[in-house]
Amino acid sequence: MNGVILEAGILNIREGQQDAFEAALNRARSLISSTPGFLAFNLHRCIETPNRYLLLVQWESVHAHTIGFRQSDRYRQWRALLHEFYDPFPVIEHFDNPISFDAE
Amino acid sequence: MNGVILEAGILNIREGQQDAFEAALNRARSLISSTPGFLAFNLHRCIETPNRYLLLVQWESVHAHTIGFRQSDRYRQWRALLHEFYDPFPVIEHFDNPISFDAE
Repeated sequence: MNGVILEAGILNIREGQQDAFEAALNRARSLISSTPGFLAFNLHRCIETPNRYLLLVQWESVHAHTIGFRQSDRYRQWRALLHEFYDPFPVIEHFDNPISFDAE
Repeated sequence: MNGVILEAGILNIREGQQDAFEAALNRARSLISSTPGFLAFNLHRCIETPNRYLLLVQWESVHAHTIGFRQSDRYRQWRALLHEFYDPFPVIEHFDNPISFDAE
């Protein structure tokens, strides 16, 4: 993960809309995955709170996400497919410099 | 990541204590990494909010974390080294079943 920027946020989805959200996300995937500087996408489902997800997207830079994706026409389509599911709208931040280690 | 449980949480560290927190974490690492079922540890630093981190720990199961680690003597040492830095104490949850894809 060194040199990789992680976009991360907790997504709270409207009650009962999880399956529709996941289906919409699968329809939307090429909108983000075709963006220059996009590296990888992971959506994790919370075990304790079923309508909660952890979004983790790896980018080459913050700019690739905030300018290259969010100011694109693809993001307008992404928003139209996905933003109706969020309640509340998520806080999305960027992370770098991990301390990383594996099992001994 | 299939079959892997992700322990995740946002850590807000007392102002100005980031370096001390990271140093304490490096001292504490063997306490968690020697736990059966522990797979990998990643601590990411927030770009927008410097005293905020994203904790991501991969485990073989929720049990490995909540019982195998948190009910161990190693966790008591971990807590003594690290819990003083948190403000507020973090919400830690578990995630599975990612939707994952890479660049096209």
